[in-house]
Amino acid sequence: MWGGRFAAGPSAIMREINASIPFDKALWRQDIAGSRAHVAMLAAQGIVTPDDAATIDEGLARIAEEYERDGVPEDWDLEDIHMTVESRLSELVGPVAGRLHTARSRNDQVATDFRLWVREASLRAEAGLEALQRALVTRAGEHADSIMPGFTHLQTAQPVTLGHHLMASYEMTKRDRSRFSDARARMDECPLGSAALAGTGFPIDREATARALGFAEPTRNSLDAVSDRDFAMDYLQAASQCAIHLSRLAEELILWASQPFGFVRLPDTLSTGSSIMPQKKNPDAAELVRGHAGRIIGCATSLMITMKGLPLAYSKDMQDDKPPVFEAAGLLDLCLAATAGMIADSEFRTDRMRQAAEMGFATATDLADWLVREADIPFREAHHITGAAVKLAESRNVALDALPLQDLQAIDARIDDRVFAALSVDASVAARASYGGTAPDEVRKRVAEARAALGMEK
Amino acid sequence: MWGGRFAAGPSAIMREINASIPFDKALWRQDIAGSRAHVAMLAAQGIVTPDDAATIDEGLARIAEEYERDGVPEDWDLEDIHMTVESRLSELVGPVAGRLHTARSRNDQVATDFRLWVREASLRAEAGLEALQRALVTRAGEHADSIMPGFTHLQTAQPVTLGHHLMASYEMTKRDRSRFSDARARMDECPLGSAALAGTGFPIDREATARALGFAEPTRNSLDAVSDRDFAMDYLQAASQCAIHLSRLAEELILWASQPFGFVRLPDTLSTGSSIMPQKKNPDAAELVRGHAGRIIGCATSLMITMKGLPLAYSKDMQDDKPPVFEAAGLLDLCLAATAGMIADSEFRTDRMRQAAEMGFATATDLADWLVREADIPFREAHHITGAAVKLAESRNVALDALPLQDLQAIDARIDDRVFAALSVDASVAARASYGGTAPDEVRKRVAEARAALGMEK
Amino acid sequence: MWGGRFAAGPSAIMREINASIPFDKALWRQDIAGSRAHVAMLAAQGIVTPDDAATIDEGLARIAEEYERDGVPEDWDLEDIHMTVESRLSELVGPVAGRLHTARSRNDQVATDFRLWVREASLRAEAGLEALQRALVTRAGEHADSIMPGFTHLQTAQPVTLGHHLMASYEMTKRDRSRFSDARARMDECPLGSAALAGTGFPIDREATARALGFAEPTRNSLDAVSDRDFAMDYLQAASQCAIHLSRLAEELILWASQPFGFVRLPDTLSTGSSIMPQKKNPDAAELVRGHAGRIIGCATSLMITMKGLPLAYSKDMQDDKPPVFEAAGLLDLCLAATAGMIADSEFRTDRMRQAAEMGFATATDLADWLVREADIPFREAHHITGAAVKLAESRNVALDALPLQDLQAIDARIDDRVFAALSVDASVAARASYGGTAPDEVRKRVAEARAALGMEK
Amino acid sequence: MWGGRFAAGPSAIMREINASIPFDKALWRQDIAGSRAHVAMLAAQGIVTPDDAATIDEGLARIAEEYERDGVPEDWDLEDIHMTVESRLSELVGPVAGRLHTARSRNDQVATDFRLWVREASLRAEAGLEALQRALVTRAGEHADSIMPGFTHLQTAQPVTLGHHLMASYEMTKRDRSRFSDARARMDECPLGSAALAGTGFPIDREATARALGFAEPTRNSLDAVSDRDFAMDYLQAASQCAIHLSRLAEELILWASQPFGFVRLPDTLSTGSSIMPQKKNPDAAELVRGHAGRIIGCATSLMITMKGLPLAYSKDMQDDKPPVFEAAGLLDLCLAATAGMIADSEFRTDRMRQAAEMGFATATDLADWLVREADIPFREAHHITGAAVKLAESRNVALDALPLQDLQAIDARIDDRVFAALSVDASVAARASYGGTAPDEVRKRVAEARAALGMEK
Repeated sequence: MWGGRFAAGPSAIMREINASIPFDKALWRQDIAGSRAHVAMLAAQGIVTPDDAATIDEGLARIAEEYERDGVPEDWDLEDIHMTVESRLSELVGPVAGRLHTARSRNDQVATDFRLWVREASLRAEAGLEALQRALVTRAGEHADSIMPGFTHLQTAQPVTLGHHLMASYEMTKRDRSRFSDARARMDECPLGSAALAGTGFPIDREATARALGFAEPTRNSLDAVSDRDFAMDYLQAASQCAIHLSRLAEELILWASQPFGFVRLPDTLSTGSSIMPQKKNPDAAELVRGHAGRIIGCATSLMITMKGLPLAYSKDMQDDKPPVFEAAGLLDLCLAATAGMIADSEFRTDRMRQAAEMGFATATDLADWLVREADIPFREAHHITGAAVKLAESRNVALDALPLQDLQAIDARIDDRVFAALSVDASVAARASYGGTAPDEVRKRVAEARAALGMEK
Repeated sequence: MWGGRFAAGPSAIMREINASIPFDKALWRQDIAGSRAHVAMLAAQGIVTPDDAATIDEGLARIAEEYERDGVPEDWDLEDIHMTVESRLSELVGPVAGRLHTARSRNDQVATDFRLWVREASLRAEAGLEALQRALVTRAGEHADSIMPGFTHLQTAQPVTLGHHLMASYEMTKRDRSRFSDARARMDECPLGSAALAGTGFPIDREATARALGFAEPTRNSLDAVSDRDFAMDYLQAASQCAIHLSRLAEELILWASQPFGFVRLPDTLSTGSSIMPQKKNPDAAELVRGHAGRIIGCATSLMITMKGLPLAYSKDMQDDKPPVFEAAGLLDLCLAATAGMIADSEFRTDRMRQAAEMGFATATDLADWLVREADIPFREAHHITGAAVKLAESRNVALDALPLQDLQAIDARIDDRVFAALSVDASVAARASYGGTAPDEVRKRVAEARAALGMEK
Repeated sequence: MWGGRFAAGPSAIMREINASIPFDKALWRQDIAGSRAHVAMLAAQGIVTPDDAATIDEGLARIAEEYERDGVPEDWDLEDIHMTVESRLSELVGPVAGRLHTARSRNDQVATDFRLWVREASLRAEAGLEALQRALVTRAGEHADSIMPGFTHLQTAQPVTLGHHLMASYEMTKRDRSRFSDARARMDECPLGSAALAGTGFPIDREATARALGFAEPTRNSLDAVSDRDFAMDYLQAASQCAIHLSRLAEELILWASQPFGFVRLPDTLSTGSSIMPQKKNPDAAELVRGHAGRIIGCATSLMITMKGLPLAYSKDMQDDKPPVFEAAGLLDLCLAATAGMIADSEFRTDRMRQAAEMGFATATDLADWLVREADIPFREAHHITGAAVKLAESRNVALDALPLQDLQAIDARIDDRVFAALSVDASVAARASYGGTAPDEVRKRVAEARAALGMEK
Repeated sequence: MWGGRFAAGPSAIMREINASIPFDKALWRQDIAGSRAHVAMLAAQGIVTPDDAATIDEGLARIAEEYERDGVPEDWDLEDIHMTVESRLSELVGPVAGRLHTARSRNDQVATDFRLWVREASLRAEAGLEALQRALVTRAGEHADSIMPGFTHLQTAQPVTLGHHLMASYEMTKRDRSRFSDARARMDECPLGSAALAGTGFPIDREATARALGFAEPTRNSLDAVSDRDFAMDYLQAASQCAIHLSRLAEELILWASQPFGFVRLPDTLSTGSSIMPQKKNPDAAELVRGHAGRIIGCATSLMITMKGLPLAYSKDMQDDKPPVFEAAGLLDLCLAATAGMIADSEFRTDRMRQAAEMGFATATDLADWLVREADIPFREAHHITGAAVKLAESRNVALDALPLQDLQAIDARIDDRVFAALSVDASVAARASYGGTAPDEVRKRVAEARAALGMEK
C-alpha cells in the first residue's frame, strides 16, 4: 500500500520521519548543561525549591555519566535528545523531574543546545585553522627563497617563491578565522527563557542562564530566538569558504604530485600506494579535501533552502537544521587536519620547481620592466622589444639570460649589460620587493609577522 | 599540533578521512552479487577453474548470510565494503580468494555496485510514487465535485474542485515516475570488466556479467565507465523535482490545516498533538516533507559540485558520491510514504472549502465570460461591467448571485436572468468543461483514465 | 558545423565567450577611480613625470564625463572595461597612456575595481536595511499592544503582539547589518600593486593608493590578492541570509493578505489588482521578494562552485565572479526597498488578528502556568487539568475565559476566580514579561532601545 | 527614506521589481506564435468571427515584422512581453484586439510561451552536442592508436590511447543528448487553454492549438498546467550535467596545455596570447567552459529553490523562472561551441603524450597480468614479483621493458622472454581488447559505430 519500503502504515512512517534522536543525540552534553543552568536559575529565583533543584541537578549529572560511559540510547519513541534526557530523569528522580520544564519549552531548549554545539564547532575550526597556519608559516619560512613558477591560467607566468605561495594560503586562513570568530560574536546571545515563542510569565533571570552558559547576554526577542538559525548558517558559510580555500590548495598538491609536475612528494601517511606501481602514490587525502568542499557547500545550500520562506515561529522543517551542520563540521575538521598534515610533512622538490621556473621565459616581464625603468622606454614599445628577444631565445632553444649581449643590442641598442642582472629567476623574484611581493626578504618579513601573531618562538 | 579534535598525527587522520566503510557498507548486497556474477563468468571463460569458482561462490554466499544475520563489520583499516568482503573471503577460503580479483579492479567494482544500488532506489521511488498516485486518484474520485477556492497569488481567484486540485498533483507524479524511469533506462549499462580504467587483457565476457546483473548491455568505454556518476546525478535530480512537488503539496496541507483556513484535518497518525492545546494538531509530517526537499536539493547540488572539473579517470573525490545519494534516497522514501498517508487519511472539510469559495466573489470572471458569450460584449467592456457589479455586491456585503436582477440591469441593460445560472460556484466549476478544466465531469474522466492506467478496479 | 546557434567558427565563439564588457562595464567608475589613484602615486614616486601624470589624469576625467553622459560603449573586441578605458585613453592622450599600466596588471586592477564595487554594494545594503529597520520599529511602536495569534507549525499557539512580531524581524536585520559590516572590514585591504601575481620591481607606494581608495591598508600577499574573491562570497553570503529573512517576512505578508487570514491590506502601490475582481489584491511585491531569495542563494552557490578547486593565481574562470554578484545586488536592493515599503504602508487589520488570537484556546498554556504558579500543581498534572477545561469549552463552543468558575472548579477544586485574570489574550501577553517576551511593556522597551540605536527622535 | 539606491517611494520600486519585460522580451516569437494559434482556433470554433481573427492575425504578423526589424520596445509600464504585444496590437487594430484574450489568461500564455522557448533551447543544445560529437569522433578516429598515459588520481596508471580518451567524452555526450530529448518528450504537452487556473467555459479546441504549436497533446489538468515549471528544471538539470562533462574535458585541456604536461596546443582562435610571453598561450576558452559550469549549476539550484514549497496555482515567484534558464542556455550554447572548436582544432602533441606514458612504469599491471595469465601465478604473488621488478628498474632509472631477461628471471624464474611482448606501451594498449577497452581495434570499432550513428560518411 505505501509503496517502496514501507509495508506498515502511517504510524510506522511517522515514527521514522519524526525521530531526530539518531542525529540530535550529538547534543547531549549541551542539553544537560542547558538544563543544569536552567534549574539552578529556577532555584535562585524561587521558582523551584532548592531541594527539588538539587535532586534534578544530581539526576542530570548522573545521566551525563551514563551517556559518557555507555552512549546515548536511541529510542525512536522518545523522538529527540530532549525527551530522551527528560524521560531518563523521570526514571531516576520521579515526578519532580517535571519541575525542570517550568518556564521553558523544547523550542528555546533546542535553540540553546544547538547554539552551544555550533559555538564549539566554530572554536574547533579556529583551532584547526591555527594548526594549519603554523604548518604553513613554518614551511614558508623554510622556503622563503625556493623558486618555483608562478602560474596564471595554469601557464608559467613569472617566478615566485614557494614561501610566497604558502603565505598566500596563510592569508586565506586568516580570513577564515575571522569569519568563524565573527560568527561566534554574532551568536553570543542565549535563547533560553524564550519559551515556546512568547516568553514566560515566570519571574526568570535570563541574564543568569546566559552567563552560566557562557553567553554575553540573552536574546532580545522571544519569537526571533526560537525561529533563528542564522548562527548555523554563519557556521556553514564560514565552513564553505574555508573548504573552498582548502580545495584550492588540495588541487595544487594534486597537480604538484603528478608525474608531469613532480613538485612534491606527499607524506606516505596521507597517501595511498599501489603494491604493483611503487612509483604511484595516490594523493587520496588531498582529493578527499577537494571533494569534501563540494559536500560542505551542499550542506550550506541545504540549510539556506530549508529556512527560506518559513513563517515564524518554530516550524518542524527546522529539524533539518542539524544534519547539514553535523556533516559539514565533521568533514571540515578532517579537511583541516589532513591539510595541516600534508603541508607539514610533504617533501617539496625544489629542484624540479626551479627547473620549471627557468623554462618558459618566465622572466620576460622583467626584461620589459627593465627597459621601462632603465631605458625610459614606454611600456608598449618595451613589450615589443621583449617579444623579439623571446622569439630569438625560443628559436635557439635557450633561456633569455643565455642570449649574448650583442644579440640583444641588435634588437634594441639601448640594452646594456646591466640587463642580465634582471633576467635570472633569482633576480626576478628579488626585484619584486614591493609590499606583499614575492621577493624573499618580503616573504621573510611576512613570515616573521605571522610567527609573532601566532606566538611562535623565533 | 593538529588543532581541533585531532590529537593524533596524520595516520589517524588518514584512517578516518579515507574510510568509506561507515557508509558504503550499504552496498554489501550489490557487492556480493557483482562478485558472484564476475566469478561465474571467469569460470565460464576458463579464466578460473570451476573448482576455484565454486569455492569462491560458496564463500561469498556465506558472507551474505553472515551480513544478513549480523550486519556488516565496520573495520576502518579495511577502508571500504569491497576490501571488507575480500578480506573475509580470504579468511573463509584462503588464497584462492585472490582469483576473484582477476580482470577487475575496485574502480569498475564500485561503479557496478553503486549503479545497482541506485537502480533499486529508483524502483523504490517509482513504487512510492505509484502508491501516492493511488491515494491521490482515490481521493480525487471522492471529491470530483467538492468545491474549494482556487488560488493564484494565494488570493481566491476562481472556484475549483478538490478532485481537480488533487489531480494536479497526480500529473506531477506522472512526470516524476517518467523521470526515474528515464534515469533507469540511461543507467542500464554494466561497467563491470572496465577494470581500473583501460579494460583488461583477459578474455572476459562482459555481455554475460551485464546480463547476470540485469543490465541491458555493457558500457562501451572503460575510461568513461569508471569515471561516470551520471546515474547518481540522474537519481538526485529526479528526486529533487519529486521532492519539490511533494513540498508544494505539503505547503498546501500546512496552510489548509491552519485555523484560518481550516480546510483539512490531518490524520492523527501523521501529526503531533499537544497535551494542553487539544485544538492544536501540528502538521509535523507535512513540515518534514517540505523541509526534506531542501536537504534533497542540497544533496543534488553537492554531487554536482564534487563532479565538476574532475579529470578522468577515477579520482578519490568520487568517494563523496554516495553520502548524498544515500541521504536523499532515505529522505525521499519517507516523504513519499508520509505524503501518501496524509492524502489517504486526511479528512477534507468540504463545508469550509465551499464557504471560502463562495466568499470573495470568485465567480466574477464567470459574469464577465457570460457577458462576452451571451451578450457579445467585448472582453474589456465586460470587465468594466463586472467590476461595477462586484463593487455593488461588496458594498451590500452579499455574494454576486444574491444581487437582484434589476440592480444588475441598472448596471448594464443587456444582462438578463439567465445570468444567475452562471454565478453560483457550482455553475462556475461546471462551466469550465474545456479539456483539462475543473468541471466535475472532466475531473471524473481524468480520474477514470488514471485508474485505468494504474490498474485500479473501477 | 558548430551546432546550435553558431554558424561561424571559433573566432566568433571566442569573441563572445571571452567578452566581459557586457557586464563588467558596471565597474567603470571604480576602474577610473583606481587608475587615477594609481597614476597619482606613480607621479609621487617619480615613476612617471608630473606632466605625464596630469595628462593621463585629465584624460581619465574626460572619459568619466563621457561615460556619465553617454554610457559605456560596448565593443566586444576590447573585451573588458579595463581595455575599453585604456583604449579610449590612448585615443585621447596618445602613447603616454601606456605609462598608466606601469607596475600594474589587469589582475590587480580587476581585483581592486571589483572590491570597490562590492564595498559600495555592501554599504547600499546596510542603508537599505536601516530604512527597513526604521519602518519596522515605527510600526512596532504603533502596535506594541495589538494582539495577534502567535504560531508554531502555523497553528495558533499563544497570543503575541504585532509589535513583538515586527521586532523579531528587527533582530534579524541587526544581524544582517553586522554581516555586511563584518564583510566590509574583512575586505578593507587594497590589492592594487600586486601586479600580475608576484608584485613589482617598481618603487611603488601601496599605502598611498590604498589610502586614496579608502582602504585601511594594502593586501599582504600578491598571489593571494589576485586570486582572492572572498570579498564577493562574503557579500553573497550576507545577501543570502538577508534575503532568507526577507523571504520569511514576505511569506507571512502573503499568508496574512489571503482571504482566510485577512490580517493585512498591503499597499496598493506594492500590489497588483484585477479589474474584474476588486476584492483581489495580488501581493506581487511580496512574492517577488520571496522568489528573489531563491535567485540570490543561487548566485551565492554559483560563485562558491566556480571558485572551488581553482589553483593560484588568476584563472579565467574567475571572470564568472561578477554576474552573480551584480544580479544578487540588484535583486537585494529591490527586495529591501519593497519590504520597507510594505512594512511602512500596510494596513494591519488588528481586529481580525485579535479575533484569530481569541479563537483556538490560545491561552490554554496560561491556565496551566497559573495552576503551577498559584496552586503549586506539578506541570504534568496542570496540563491534564487544562486539557479537561479546553475540552469542555470546545464542547460548548466558547472561549476558555467564558467558562463559569463552578465548571472549572468541578474539574479541579483548586481553581479560584483569580484565574480569569490569566485567561484573556490581553492578560496572556501582559504576563509574558520575561526579558525578550511579548508583554507590551517589554516590546516598548525594545522599541525604545532600537529607536535610540537608529537615532530616531522619540 | 528607502535606503540604498531608491530615493523614490513604493511606486517606483514596484515598477522596477515587477517589470519582467527586460528579460521576457526574449519570448516575443513564442508569444506571437501562441497568439496566432489561439486566434485561429477561436475562429475555427466560432468564438470570434473570421474577420476579427484575420484582423488580429495580420496585426500580430505586423508586430513580428516590427520586432524582427527594430527589436522589442522595453516599456516597464507594460510589465511583460504579453502586455507589450497586446498593447501594440490594440494600437494597430483597435478594440478588436481585446477578442484575442478570450478563453485565455496570462497564466497559460506564459506557460506556453516559455515551454516553446525551452523546447527550442533543448533542440539547440542537442545540435550543439551533435557538433561536438562529430569533432570528438573525428579526432578519436585520427588518434585511435596514439598512446598517452591514463590517469587515476592524476597519477600515471596505465597507457591508453587518445582516441579512447576522446571516446569517453563521446559516451558522456550521448547521455547528455538523451537527457535533453527525454526532457522534450516530457514537456510535449500544450498548456494553452488552461486559462487562469481552472480551464474555461468557452468551447475551445485545445487539440487544435496543441497541434498548431507542435505539441503532441494538450496538458490534462489546468491547475497543474499553469503551476508547472518542470520543463524548465528538466532543461536546467540536463544543462548542468552537460556542463559538468564539458568542465571535466576543459580541466583536462587546461592541464594538458600547461608547460609541465605539454600534451596539447590549443587553437589560437580559442586562446589568448601575451605580447611579451610568446610561449604563453592562455586557455581562456577552456577556463570559461569550466567556470560556466558553476554558473549553470547555480541556475539550476536557483530555480529549484524558487519552486520549492509554492502552493498552487500561479504565484509571482514563478516570474523568477526565466532569468536562470535564459542565462544557462546562453552559457551552455557557448560552452558547447567552444568545446567543439577546441577539440576540432587543437594540435595533440602525441610525442609528449607517448613519452609521458612510457615514464612511470605504466605497464607494471601488464607484467602482473602476464604472470597470472601465462605462469598461472595467483594475483597477489604476481603483484609481489612485479613490485620487485619495478623497484629494480627504478633503481637503474630504466623502463620496465629495458630490464634484461636474466634480471627478471632472477626475480622469478617463471618469467620467460615472451614477457617483453607485454611490457611496451603499445603491447599494453593492444592487449586491453576487452569490450570497451583501450585497444586500438576496439577504439576503431567504437568510432565506426559512432560515425554510423551520426550519419558521418566513412
